[in-house]
Amino acid sequence: MSDALAYVRRAVRGMAAYVPGLQPGPGQRLVKLNTNENPYPPSPRAIESLLAASDASLRLYPDPDCRALRARAAEVYGLRPEQVLAGNGSDELLAIVMRAFVEEGDTVAYFQPSYSLYPVLAAVARARVVEVPLPRNATGLPVPSPRAKVFLLTTPNAPYGTGFPTAWIASLLQSFPGIVVADEAYADFAAETSLPLLAGHPHLVIARTLSKAYSLAGLRVGLAFAHPDLVREMAKVKDSYNLGRPAQAAAAEALADQEHFSTNRDRVLATRERCAARLASIGFLVLPSQANFLFVVPGNSMPGARDLYGRLLERGFLVRFFDRPGLEDGLRISIGTDDDMDGLVRALAECARS
Amino acid sequence: MSDALAYVRRAVRGMAAYVPGLQPGPGQRLVKLNTNENPYPPSPRAIESLLAASDASLRLYPDPDCRALRARAAEVYGLRPEQVLAGNGSDELLAIVMRAFVEEGDTVAYFQPSYSLYPVLAAVARARVVEVPLPRNATGLPVPSPRAKVFLLTTPNAPYGTGFPTAWIASLLQSFPGIVVADEAYADFAAETSLPLLAGHPHLVIARTLSKAYSLAGLRVGLAFAHPDLVREMAKVKDSYNLGRPAQAAAAEALADQEHFSTNRDRVLATRERCAARLASIGFLVLPSQANFLFVVPGNSMPGARDLYGRLLERGFLVRFFDRPGLEDGLRISIGTDDDMDGLVRALAECARS
Repeated sequence: MSDALAYVRRAVRGMAAYVPGLQPGPGQRLVKLNTNENPYPPSPRAIESLLAASDASLRLYPDPDCRALRARAAEVYGLRPEQVLAGNGSDELLAIVMRAFVEEGDTVAYFQPSYSLYPVLAAVARARVVEVPLPRNATGLPVPSPRAKVFLLTTPNAPYGTGFPTAWIASLLQSFPGIVVADEAYADFAAETSLPLLAGHPHLVIARTLSKAYSLAGLRVGLAFAHPDLVREMAKVKDSYNLGRPAQAAAAEALADQEHFSTNRDRVLATRERCAARLASIGFLVLPSQANFLFVVPGNSMPGARDLYGRLLERGFLVRFFDRPGLEDGLRISIGTDDDMDGLVRALAECARS
Repeated sequence: MSDALAYVRRAVRGMAAYVPGLQPGPGQRLVKLNTNENPYPPSPRAIESLLAASDASLRLYPDPDCRALRARAAEVYGLRPEQVLAGNGSDELLAIVMRAFVEEGDTVAYFQPSYSLYPVLAAVARARVVEVPLPRNATGLPVPSPRAKVFLLTTPNAPYGTGFPTAWIASLLQSFPGIVVADEAYADFAAETSLPLLAGHPHLVIARTLSKAYSLAGLRVGLAFAHPDLVREMAKVKDSYNLGRPAQAAAAEALADQEHFSTNRDRVLATRERCAARLASIGFLVLPSQANFLFVVPGNSMPGARDLYGRLLERGFLVRFFDRPGLEDGLRISIGTDDDMDGLVRALAECARS
């Protein structure tokens, strides 16, 4: 251990960093299906507003309150601007939730598996964690009742893709005494959302992102929806200028272009269903997905998931393999274009035979 | 108190948010000299790279490690990339410092006055604070020896503009047992920097920003320089994708364009000296500044600072008035163009007479 490390908090020194999916270098030609990016470009209106923002006005600080963006989001989602907080990706919003609600020693609950950032956030806050096992078949899943300050619910779940019905989330809100965070990063691809629950539940925080369905992962914009009192307190613990001028402008335009949004979402949904059926037909177990990815488990006679991951990579397809108990038997595959997925299915069929 | 507030940490509920300088709406035509923005546009190379980044590649996540930007920064500042961490503005880097080094109950020390974000960061971390009084004339200032885990040193100081000599910072590093953060947001305008101290001091963290001298306040890019071990640990507690693709690309180009940078910095420095002399000549006390702003105190026969702030605003000049003990007798005035400052001096002379 170097001298410098002695200054670092023990909780940080002892913790593993969050491991994002591989970002291949510019030289690597891969069909990238590992981080749930959208295969289609963002709205031309968003691009235009980025181009317009790329000027001398960059010398000026952005609006710390993101007023125009929040007003637009409120309009699109049927809320008031005071119910909206904008963040540097929904990751920042999740970190803000921790800083606003979780005291050292408090407990944070979440399903296992779900978003693997949660244990990292808990470690930074020195919070205890309760990991509630999530079965692969969540139909009829009873509402868990952990004693915790915050329940982080990835809905639809990642990496399984399971969507939690709104009625189920309503029951959770009924019985859970703390803050419920509906981490809806993938909700744009789902049948339901917890948005209708917002009005009646001052302890619900919904986190959204423009990274997936709006094709803006490279820009870093997330939105949180909550009771105005919570939004005000959460805003206190964000970096004051957390969103730059280009990001604010482009995000507002992307939200305004609902036609572009829904066209691309529908394409992704159609491809997802088509691909799920084909993978099932060649012998994979495909979990029902309400997200823009599929969690698939190779059949008994096939090579294991780790093997398949490597063989796919050799064939130019990058998917996600989680080397963790409970996940190591499957692959998470993002939904690309129809062409991407046709190629992937062919490659998987080859790999599975060999 | 609404029901929702009961969920919020007491430390957050009880704390005042950081108050950023006023951002006038698009309709308000003001000479904006209140948040230390650069009056000149950013490098054309930065703009070009922003334009180039405004395309379909935005659907992809950015490099979580900001490798190209850090390599460029390392080159410009004579460091290794492992000594560089990139942040969403230097505010994020200061928040990262707190999360990496400050345990609940630890003490954070800083000069009073200095950057008014520090007490907010301390409150979020539930840290104790030691505020060391900073005299207006800091010549011969003894090195303070607070018992603290972290010393946050704004150098040059804001809002006074006082630059701390490198030798003085070396003494602080010698005697202070914790992490010294040289918050060098304004160091590009100063005679000295603590960069040469980095090699020999594993407990020094330097925070820089591209918001001031690089005219990129609207983009949100900051840099931290520290021992590679500290950088690695600090990176664990940042949001993984904390900088978007456009910001990474443009920041790297802005750093590469040192000619644009130094030309504009020199213009700001020349204007600062010219303006300081003229304000002194009409009876203001002007603190010696190594930053891109001046802290000025009206002479005895003049209206008070609060009054002058209002009168300047009526005349279309927005400066910064801090309604706090120790600062309420003065105004902080950012350095604009020569025209801006000539107008300001005329307006101040009028206000001071009336």
